[in-house]
Amino acid sequence: MPHINVNNSLAGIRGLMNFRPETAGPLCDLAEVLLRSKDGLTPAERELIATHVSYLNDCFYCHNSHGEIACYYLKGDRELVDQVRKDYQHAEVPDKLKALLQIASHVQQGGKFVTEEDIANARKHGATDKDIHDTVLIAAAFCMFNRYVDGLAATTPADLSTYPPRAKQVAENGYGNHIFSAKQPVAKIV
Amino acid sequence: MPHINVNNSLAGIRGLMNFRPETAGPLCDLAEVLLRSKDGLTPAERELIATHVSYLNDCFYCHNSHGEIACYYLKGDRELVDQVRKDYQHAEVPDKLKALLQIASHVQQGGKFVTEEDIANARKHGATDKDIHDTVLIAAAFCMFNRYVDGLAATTPADLSTYPPRAKQVAENGYGNHIFSAKQPVAKIV
Repeated sequence: MPHINVNNSLAGIRGLMNFRPETAGPLCDLAEVLLRSKDGLTPAERELIATHVSYLNDCFYCHNSHGEIACYYLKGDRELVDQVRKDYQHAEVPDKLKALLQIASHVQQGGKFVTEEDIANARKHGATDKDIHDTVLIAAAFCMFNRYVDGLAATTPADLSTYPPRAKQVAENGYGNHIFSAKQPVAKIV
Repeated sequence: MPHINVNNSLAGIRGLMNFRPETAGPLCDLAEVLLRSKDGLTPAERELIATHVSYLNDCFYCHNSHGEIACYYLKGDRELVDQVRKDYQHAEVPDKLKALLQIASHVQQGGKFVTEEDIANARKHGATDKDIHDTVLIAAAFCMFNRYVDGLAATTPADLSTYPPRAKQVAENGYGNHIFSAKQPVAKIV
């Protein structure tokens, strides 16, 4: 049960955003830019980084939510998503993405854990400054989102079948904060 | 030296925001709501929470930047800020703020470290749902900001005398993202 009195029919971060729309706006705007930009990294790569970091932070709601969005972009390849989530070094993804996931995993431990070698390795595999910037900020942002969700004990559906419909909606329509509005009928956002 | 090619005349997060204005906008908007809202917690209390979490994350730039902003709001009481930064349990602050700092310190470790007892203790000292929400999100957001700054090795002035002028500017004018614009003369923003 959440630590504060939120609308329990809204799962995870959505209940929290509905409680405090003043912060929901910037949070949604940040997710929209970081996860759906097509400038450099693809949306699928961005969601895979978010999924891996959320898994490292043991945030069930976030790693399943974002894993499902990655899965949608990857035409349903749930096996690949699961491999990246748990053990990206042996996943069938390009070396550039592996190098960026290494940076992300170090950010999860703390900013100072990112090494010059991590950066050089990413560059060697073709990562640009913007790719490195976005990777660090996605990883950092999920260290926020994960703590926000679990720190307030947000409602977390255990039934994994509830995640794909929401993932499809986000993948197709984005993280627009209007969907967290209290005026929006619940039936449309679940 | 930063891991990516940013404008080194802009210290800390400002150099990163100048590099990527698309993400700077939501980040500034988030800081503005979380740190300058007067709804419940005061701006001074919000900055103290940010300072303590940044200290726990060992982010020199952030704990000095936000410590100075707290100090400005507290009429120059640097001793109090330093006590909260390093050992809030013995600081001369209200029990409600101590209880919220306890929640924040647990969020810094990870969302699941926040306990029912932490929440009950905060409520016992008068914390509302919004106070608890904002405390968790401030702490979570600084787990992002700190990782963003140190994960990209942002330029960090070692000279502590450079922090108060910037703190005064933020305290008086806010976290508006226009100040990160490349078009703004550097002399006006340092």
